[in-house]
Amino acid sequence: MIKVSISYKYEENANFDHAYYSAQHLPMVKSLLGDACIKYEIDKGVCGPMPGSAPDIIAACHLYTESTEKFYQAFSAVQKEILRDVKNYTEITPAMQVNEVSASE
Amino acid sequence: MIKVSISYKYEENANFDHAYYSAQHLPMVKSLLGDACIKYEIDKGVCGPMPGSAPDIIAACHLYTESTEKFYQAFSAVQKEILRDVKNYTEITPAMQVNEVSASE
Repeated sequence: MIKVSISYKYEENANFDHAYYSAQHLPMVKSLLGDACIKYEIDKGVCGPMPGSAPDIIAACHLYTESTEKFYQAFSAVQKEILRDVKNYTEITPAMQVNEVSASE
Repeated sequence: MIKVSISYKYEENANFDHAYYSAQHLPMVKSLLGDACIKYEIDKGVCGPMPGSAPDIIAACHLYTESTEKFYQAFSAVQKEILRDVKNYTEITPAMQVNEVSASE
């Protein structure tokens, strides 16, 4: 399985609207990507290694997909619409990375 | 649900033994943490936003747990044993962060 991770680095005084991100942005992304997004997971950064410390990443989403090719094909057709929505929840520039993922229950 | 993410930043010329990490290290971590680790997921970094580019994170694991308190209680008792094993698969220093996670299938 492939997991495309989009993360937002913590910046002091930067805004991040977690409610909008969960309730509006990610459902729109999933809908636009169609079957190129099997499921997604959203992270809200709580803290770094020590309780109470600032997290390195303030928020992230992980889009699970069958293959990198399938993802990029779908993403390239809708990325303008997706990126246009970013200003509605943050001014932080997102970083993107592709992972191969294995899991254990 | 809480997700404790441990990540290894890509460093040119640094080693990372993904096979050992998956087959030896993580099963040991899960066993040591007992029911403080419900499941885990392992990422192998493939690339950054552009295919063929270096990933920011070369590897990561995500430990799913009921609560931060439960995790830290279990982790503090076994962290020496866990950290002693790191040299067997990499010389990169791990970074740790705690997230609140929500998912959509």
